[in-house]
Amino acid sequence: MTIRSNPIGVFDSGMGGLTCVRQLVKLLPTEDIVYLGDTARVPYGNKSPNTIIKFSIQNSLYLLRFKIKLIVVACNTSSSFALDKLKTIFGIPIIGVIEPGVKRALELTKNKRIGIIGTNATINSLAYQKKLIAAGSAVKVFAQSCPLFVPLAEEGWIRGRITEDIAKKYLAPLKNKNIDTLVLGCTHYPLLKSAIAKVMGRSIRLVDSAEELALDVKALMRSKGIASDRKIKGKIRFFLTDEPYKFKKTGERFLGRKLESVYPVKENEF
Amino acid sequence: MTIRSNPIGVFDSGMGGLTCVRQLVKLLPTEDIVYLGDTARVPYGNKSPNTIIKFSIQNSLYLLRFKIKLIVVACNTSSSFALDKLKTIFGIPIIGVIEPGVKRALELTKNKRIGIIGTNATINSLAYQKKLIAAGSAVKVFAQSCPLFVPLAEEGWIRGRITEDIAKKYLAPLKNKNIDTLVLGCTHYPLLKSAIAKVMGRSIRLVDSAEELALDVKALMRSKGIASDRKIKGKIRFFLTDEPYKFKKTGERFLGRKLESVYPVKENEF
Repeated sequence: MTIRSNPIGVFDSGMGGLTCVRQLVKLLPTEDIVYLGDTARVPYGNKSPNTIIKFSIQNSLYLLRFKIKLIVVACNTSSSFALDKLKTIFGIPIIGVIEPGVKRALELTKNKRIGIIGTNATINSLAYQKKLIAAGSAVKVFAQSCPLFVPLAEEGWIRGRITEDIAKKYLAPLKNKNIDTLVLGCTHYPLLKSAIAKVMGRSIRLVDSAEELALDVKALMRSKGIASDRKIKGKIRFFLTDEPYKFKKTGERFLGRKLESVYPVKENEF
Repeated sequence: MTIRSNPIGVFDSGMGGLTCVRQLVKLLPTEDIVYLGDTARVPYGNKSPNTIIKFSIQNSLYLLRFKIKLIVVACNTSSSFALDKLKTIFGIPIIGVIEPGVKRALELTKNKRIGIIGTNATINSLAYQKKLIAAGSAVKVFAQSCPLFVPLAEEGWIRGRITEDIAKKYLAPLKNKNIDTLVLGCTHYPLLKSAIAKVMGRSIRLVDSAEELALDVKALMRSKGIASDRKIKGKIRFFLTDEPYKFKKTGERFLGRKLESVYPVKENEF
């Protein structure tokens, strides 16, 4: 057993990160994955930076029990506030969901006018805005928080008049800004992609952070020589700090397939 | 100083309980109140019974530091799952938000057909349904969870097409049941009362649990001889396990007046 066979650790505040697992499995089917959903304390989006950092450290420590070779912070709020801190604490590669989306948006934009949507915490952290602007002074960034998108996605109301009306209300300020690229800065938002695309119009390129993240994880593991070299399908395990109502049903919508191997996190291990 | 001068302790998972504080202040203006909002772990509505019980015990222990004379569990989810447990643990009077609303609904209904709306956890706990039915076999109860109502209230979208469309979608099954009384089984819902009333129609009586709770607190304190006998206005203090984005602004909408005396809960005290 070399480090190549060790699992990838993924954590999120809840089930949003399953959209990242979905893309990881698609791109890297032979990797083992251990997912931690901090469903007892979800959501992180309305909590303070210090609390988010504390929770993110606890989540990482839990995943390290599984001899993981890499940590994926599959939560925009944690990536905004805690990624730098985690990198100073832990000795293994750590990758968040923000940089992959930022990189892709900068590749796609032609007019250098980029929109970003996310939770209150992500938008107010300015994490995306700072990283996008750092790429060059010519870039203009327009940000909008969309607090109802997460409960809409979890409720499964992914299309229809209510969802489109809410999307129209949130996205109207961005539509007036002549952006050509919009970053979905929350792991829940890929579920609402078609409603968002409908409101924004076909000419706007949407960046799905989960897709970009998976590509970056693949590249990072290659460069470090830690990608799985097995031929068999990887094993995926899901650990939850609490089992919320409807997790399985909603989770399957996020993951795009059956949710098996779901375990509770034991109190004394966390 | 007698026990009469001691404060009333109130806890909620977040800011919803402020609608209860609003009614308590209105009815009992000379009482001191200590409010604990567990904003670091909000919401409780999607968590498991054991987790909700654990959090509720921690919240009660924190409030007991203030020599409170009574605990108000101003959270439907906690009242559903943890009230009985709290009563077995703590030696002071404890009152939840469910029984006052249930009592009032039973007084109001003429056709014995009662609707109840709340979070997933409250509805699935069957706490309201069991208590309503226990009052007499002739009572028929129709329950509906409305997960988007809480984020709508927190976003401040309390009227308009989106809110009414969402209310229509959730309440349609209840409208078909010929109920004459509807219990608002979540402390956030009083903010949406006018939209709910518009959808349900004028003939349906809405029961606001916060109002009924305040009446029951008053009666309970009188019967126990612990009501304040001062003539001066009470002091209200708010403690939060985390300071979420927008708490003050949103909290003031719930409380119906300026939010002053807001303090963080110290890590080592919780």
